[in-house]
Amino acid sequence: MNTLKKHTEYLISKDQLLAHWQGHRALTRRVIEVFPEDQLFSFSIGGMRTFAQLVSELLAIAGPGVEGLATDVWRELDEADRSGNEKSRLLALWDQTTTKINQFWPQIPEERFQQKLVAFGQYEDKGYCTLLYFMDNEIHHRGQGYVYLRVLGIEPPAFWER
Amino acid sequence: MNTLKKHTEYLISKDQLLAHWQGHRALTRRVIEVFPEDQLFSFSIGGMRTFAQLVSELLAIAGPGVEGLATDVWRELDEADRSGNEKSRLLALWDQTTTKINQFWPQIPEERFQQKLVAFGQYEDKGYCTLLYFMDNEIHHRGQGYVYLRVLGIEPPAFWER
Repeated sequence: MNTLKKHTEYLISKDQLLAHWQGHRALTRRVIEVFPEDQLFSFSIGGMRTFAQLVSELLAIAGPGVEGLATDVWRELDEADRSGNEKSRLLALWDQTTTKINQFWPQIPEERFQQKLVAFGQYEDKGYCTLLYFMDNEIHHRGQGYVYLRVLGIEPPAFWER
Repeated sequence: MNTLKKHTEYLISKDQLLAHWQGHRALTRRVIEVFPEDQLFSFSIGGMRTFAQLVSELLAIAGPGVEGLATDVWRELDEADRSGNEKSRLLALWDQTTTKINQFWPQIPEERFQQKLVAFGQYEDKGYCTLLYFMDNEIHHRGQGYVYLRVLGIEPPAFWER
C-alpha cells in the first residue's frame, strides 16, 4: 500500500460517522434536558408537533434504524410517544437508544453504505443516504426545538458543542 | 484489488458528499423562494435573526468555506447581508455560491478530509468535521426557517426532497 492509497482510503471512517451521530445525539439530549417538563409535552407553535413528539420520531428512527442498517431487517416506523409525559422517561428512552446504536454499529457491514436499502420497508436509498437522513432529520427537528426554547425565553445549548 | 477491498474503499465518496451538500442547498433555496419577500427580511420570533440573516451566515460559510477546503487559505467570516433586502438578489448570491462550490470541489485534495484545519482562522478541526459542520449548520438554521414559515401559515417544501 503506497502513501497515496493510505490517504485516499476513506474520507470519513465508520468510527468517525458513529462519533458524529452520537455527538449530535448528545446535543439533542441536552436540548431535551433544558426544556421545562410541562412545555416539552405541551408547547408548540405554527400548528407543529411538541418537542416530545419530534423526539419520539427521532427515537422511532434511530434505534430500529441502526438495527436495520446492521441486519437489513426493517420493521414499520412506530413514532408513538412512550414517555408517559415524563422527561426522565424520555431521557431514559434516549439513553437506551444510545446504547443500542453503539451495540449494533460494529455489526453494520462496510459495504452496506453503498448498497440500496428499503429503510422501514418504504424508503429506498443507498445505506449512506439512509444514515445521513437519520442525522439530518434529527438536526432539522432539533433546530426547531431551538426556536421553541427561544420563544419560551430559554437559552438553548451551544450548537457547536457535541 | 480483491472484492472486499473494492467494497471497503469508501463509505461515502467525494462526489456523493458534494451531491449531498448541493441537495441540501437546493432545498434551502426552495425555502428562501417560498418566503414572502417582506417576511424574509423582517420576520423573527424569540429574539432570533431573520431568515435572510441566517441565510447570509450560510453564504458566508459555504463559498469561502469550499475555497478554504480546496486551498487551506482562510479569510475571516463575513456574515454581512449583501442582498439589499431583495429576495431575487439573495437567490442570485445563493446561485453564485452553488457555482463556486462546484468549481472548487474537484480541487479539494482527498487527504484534506482527514487533515487538521483551522477554518476561517479560528475553528480547528479535521476537514471532514469542518465540511459536516457547514452542512449541519445549514440544516439547523433551515429547520428554524421551517418554524418561521409554519408560524406565518406557509407550507414549507418537503424536507426529504433534495
